[in-house]
Amino acid sequence: MPVYNAPIKDMQFLLHDVLKITESEIPGYGDLDRDFTGAILQEAGKISSEVLQPLNVIGDQQGCRIENGVVRTPDGFKDAFNQLCQGGWPGLDMPEQYGGQGLPYLMNSAVSEIFSAANQSFTMYQGLTHGAVSAILTHGSDTQKDMFVPKMVTCEWTGTMNLTEPQCGTDLALMRTKAEKQDDGSYALTGQKIFISAGEHDLAQNIIHLVLAKIPGGPEGIKGVSLFIVPKFMVNENGSLGDRNSVMCSSLEHKMGVHGNATCVMDYDGAKGWLLGQEHKGMRAMFTMMNEARLGVGMQGLAQAAVAYQNAVAYAKERLQGRAATGAQNPDGPADPIIVHPDIRRSLMDQRAFVEGGRALLLWGASLIDHAHRGKNTEAEGLISLLTPVIKGFLTDEGFNMTVQAQQIYGGHGYIEESGMSQFVRDARIAMVYEGANGIQALDLVGRKLALDGGKHMLGFIDLVKSWIKENAGQNDVFDQDFVEPLKSASKDLQAAGMYFMAHGMKNPNAALAGSTDFLHLFGHVCLGLMWARMAKAAKDALAAGAPDATFHETKLTTGRYYMARRLPATALHLARIENGAETVMALDADQF
Amino acid sequence: MPVYNAPIKDMQFLLHDVLKITESEIPGYGDLDRDFTGAILQEAGKISSEVLQPLNVIGDQQGCRIENGVVRTPDGFKDAFNQLCQGGWPGLDMPEQYGGQGLPYLMNSAVSEIFSAANQSFTMYQGLTHGAVSAILTHGSDTQKDMFVPKMVTCEWTGTMNLTEPQCGTDLALMRTKAEKQDDGSYALTGQKIFISAGEHDLAQNIIHLVLAKIPGGPEGIKGVSLFIVPKFMVNENGSLGDRNSVMCSSLEHKMGVHGNATCVMDYDGAKGWLLGQEHKGMRAMFTMMNEARLGVGMQGLAQAAVAYQNAVAYAKERLQGRAATGAQNPDGPADPIIVHPDIRRSLMDQRAFVEGGRALLLWGASLIDHAHRGKNTEAEGLISLLTPVIKGFLTDEGFNMTVQAQQIYGGHGYIEESGMSQFVRDARIAMVYEGANGIQALDLVGRKLALDGGKHMLGFIDLVKSWIKENAGQNDVFDQDFVEPLKSASKDLQAAGMYFMAHGMKNPNAALAGSTDFLHLFGHVCLGLMWARMAKAAKDALAAGAPDATFHETKLTTGRYYMARRLPATALHLARIENGAETVMALDADQF
Repeated sequence: MPVYNAPIKDMQFLLHDVLKITESEIPGYGDLDRDFTGAILQEAGKISSEVLQPLNVIGDQQGCRIENGVVRTPDGFKDAFNQLCQGGWPGLDMPEQYGGQGLPYLMNSAVSEIFSAANQSFTMYQGLTHGAVSAILTHGSDTQKDMFVPKMVTCEWTGTMNLTEPQCGTDLALMRTKAEKQDDGSYALTGQKIFISAGEHDLAQNIIHLVLAKIPGGPEGIKGVSLFIVPKFMVNENGSLGDRNSVMCSSLEHKMGVHGNATCVMDYDGAKGWLLGQEHKGMRAMFTMMNEARLGVGMQGLAQAAVAYQNAVAYAKERLQGRAATGAQNPDGPADPIIVHPDIRRSLMDQRAFVEGGRALLLWGASLIDHAHRGKNTEAEGLISLLTPVIKGFLTDEGFNMTVQAQQIYGGHGYIEESGMSQFVRDARIAMVYEGANGIQALDLVGRKLALDGGKHMLGFIDLVKSWIKENAGQNDVFDQDFVEPLKSASKDLQAAGMYFMAHGMKNPNAALAGSTDFLHLFGHVCLGLMWARMAKAAKDALAAGAPDATFHETKLTTGRYYMARRLPATALHLARIENGAETVMALDADQF
Repeated sequence: MPVYNAPIKDMQFLLHDVLKITESEIPGYGDLDRDFTGAILQEAGKISSEVLQPLNVIGDQQGCRIENGVVRTPDGFKDAFNQLCQGGWPGLDMPEQYGGQGLPYLMNSAVSEIFSAANQSFTMYQGLTHGAVSAILTHGSDTQKDMFVPKMVTCEWTGTMNLTEPQCGTDLALMRTKAEKQDDGSYALTGQKIFISAGEHDLAQNIIHLVLAKIPGGPEGIKGVSLFIVPKFMVNENGSLGDRNSVMCSSLEHKMGVHGNATCVMDYDGAKGWLLGQEHKGMRAMFTMMNEARLGVGMQGLAQAAVAYQNAVAYAKERLQGRAATGAQNPDGPADPIIVHPDIRRSLMDQRAFVEGGRALLLWGASLIDHAHRGKNTEAEGLISLLTPVIKGFLTDEGFNMTVQAQQIYGGHGYIEESGMSQFVRDARIAMVYEGANGIQALDLVGRKLALDGGKHMLGFIDLVKSWIKENAGQNDVFDQDFVEPLKSASKDLQAAGMYFMAHGMKNPNAALAGSTDFLHLFGHVCLGLMWARMAKAAKDALAAGAPDATFHETKLTTGRYYMARRLPATALHLARIENGAETVMALDADQF
């Protein structure tokens, strides 16, 4: 049986020693002192280890069941969901006006990693509701906010997001679901939506569907898409539930993983809905939610790698097999624990350096969201918009790879479902495809974000790296060699790739797009390089100041050195591929395949 | 529903244009003319598409079931197995003396890829029998050969290999199963073996278990391990079946994939067995089979990538989503097929270049086995012994990655089991862990094979690359730039890594072992680089000679250019990691994890 312990010490280090949140000017950050954040993370860790994690395997084995449109979640999910709601967790970063606790998004991100690592399928019910609430808060009328948000903040009602149709995934211009205006100002929605996570279940009294659809007679393609609120049960003026709406789940998908979350085919048969925001401006409404949603998926990739890594470490310490090449380390036992073997170490260090670096990136990204939304900082807004596809794509691709590496530590035992490692891999796999498959993230990055506002945000990121280098170079030879120089070299590769796109992308868009996935990964490595540089600096300072728990800080420095020496040099390979352009990529005709 | 078409044209190109088998001095190769090999591959392709592939999904969904020690395979497996046996496929490369067809191992390898791509779980029943027959042929007495081999060559009886125990995987010195000598010269085996593929099933009348066990009083550890033949049913002198032996399957494992193959826990309760080979020389007997078995697993990694790639191509041509960046390619349709998008192409080219290069490597490896066994060539024996961990580790690691990439082409649809792509990924995953997990392959390569016989085989490989370069350089600038120079550069990285190990490995074994997985991948890339160089040469010659099907040969050259330009440069990254040594890898104490 797998185990999970929340990485509280690591998160506290990131919040207080690296991000130094109480010194930040972001509204609300001043209150987040070490004791307060520690208490929140402790509580989240407790519920994750005691309630959510034990249900993870059960969710995988039982999955969700459907009978006549009624969907049953796995045994124990409903009780656990009630416990989570009673603890106020779904409203952690929601406005106090609607019953939330008003904490920064940063804290929600940290807590979400903990919950998701313990039980991704379960945590998605709440996560999707969070996204739907954000959309209503941003685009809804006051009446809509008052009607839906308070119940959704507590997760008495949950939310969904309905985009995909069988013929229409990435390309929303192909959408067929229609919304016909009725005399009472509402719309009648008709069509089929697929891949709707948490589309139907037994955890909440009502489900509030946000649905993209086209109003007949509107503009062609994507410019004619509008967003609607379609509740499962109508809501009466006094807030009580009324008639059942004509939307129903006709079947559940059989998926590779996240079996505990119901992925629904939803049939809308003249279902009653209300416009959210303006007519034909549905895409704009979607995009405002997308940064948060994509960061949330990046978090899921990281979270599965984190829990898989924890279990791999435990197994590597416990499994006795072979002897260390340098002599027995456990001479009284029948063999040494496999953690003595260099290739096992190499794999564990790959995982550890990714998990800790990725966690730093995610929390930094969340703080940029707060900076943008709470601090109304447009530079932060631009920067997180640039980083969003990197965080989503890199953390889920690498998160999956690292989860596979963790499974590999178990040898054949990891291939057996009882170890729990297979579930981590199968669950982690979904994060690479939903909320925009990773190829789409790469396209968004290279085709859109890179040149946005005249390339200002990319230059802003490069400036951040350069300032860090300027501030920290030349003080200590070893630190220069271990951290400053590798970061400098990697960021040069990133700039060279940007230059290549500038020089070739305009006259030949394929030359840039052929390197888009490589660019996303190059960028991701530089982000993690910057995070490791900042963490190393914080650890060095803590050691110099005689902080308690020197081992923690020394371990941080060692892990950082590993990343800089063995993972970051991947940037050169990605650059070489990018500079190869589109010629070899596009050389075949489609019928030569 | 996934599809599969055997890659007959590609195999024929490899056999006749690249390996030029009829010109070879290896006994039996002279008979393998183009028509003959074509007829075999056509027939194998037919049975794979019509019989094996349609059962693949059924096997995954139903799995195997156990009741009171009786194991039922999925519906249709038994009929298909009978068809396969009646076609004489299991005996393709077995000695004619025992009812086989006496063809080279090379042909068995090509056919096995086809069968395995169509249905890996099903093909394993036959593949394990093949391994067991090889062991009996090499180490058995004439009586044993006569008793078991003829029925196993036809797969009327199947075979298994029993190594692993709960506490004993890689480290066979920890083995507990004991074999006590009886007065009649037989042994009584007692103990539990786990992860026994095809350990029990309903496809054959009898199952011949080869079992590693220790004879009490023998040498300690691995030097006291012997190999035994333990039939499920005793065999009477006239060849008829006698009593049921006291070996039984107590449970089936629940695995991530290959559900159609029964992975058994086998309990030996004083089961009657006979020594195969000499007492305490069981490891030697195992090792003689290992090259073939590991090549066979490398083949499985390749085969899943091959079938996944085929389906990804079909989907990419059919799925309409978005428009090409350079203008609509399907202006009359609602959108363009996704194969127009550069990042989809990049992924398909990654897969294609791997699959075709890997297939070349596998068939070349198989020809080395024939050269060693049929041709009694000790250089070939040494070379394939060196290449075996590379072929197993590289083709299964990369095969899995490429299968995941193929699944990714489907976006969310690939995560749904009905697409069949999830099964390919889940099935491919096992090849990285069994027959020696890939970390063990890397250890075998760096810790054992590299320095074997004074490093002679490694030098032999480097010489092969150098001779090819010498022969082919300076004739054509474009060919030099596209193929000769990249191969030269990659092989320099390989040599530099070897030098690093020589300089540091003796005084610090960890310095070499910390780079073992990187070395395996570096070596794998150079192998595929050499294969692509040889294929490009053959394609160029064919075009110059005005061979029919110019498009096939041009496609080959284009795909080769892709590999050399975008995949092969990975060698530099692997070298950088290797030259980083063990310091950052081993810097943490175990309790710092």
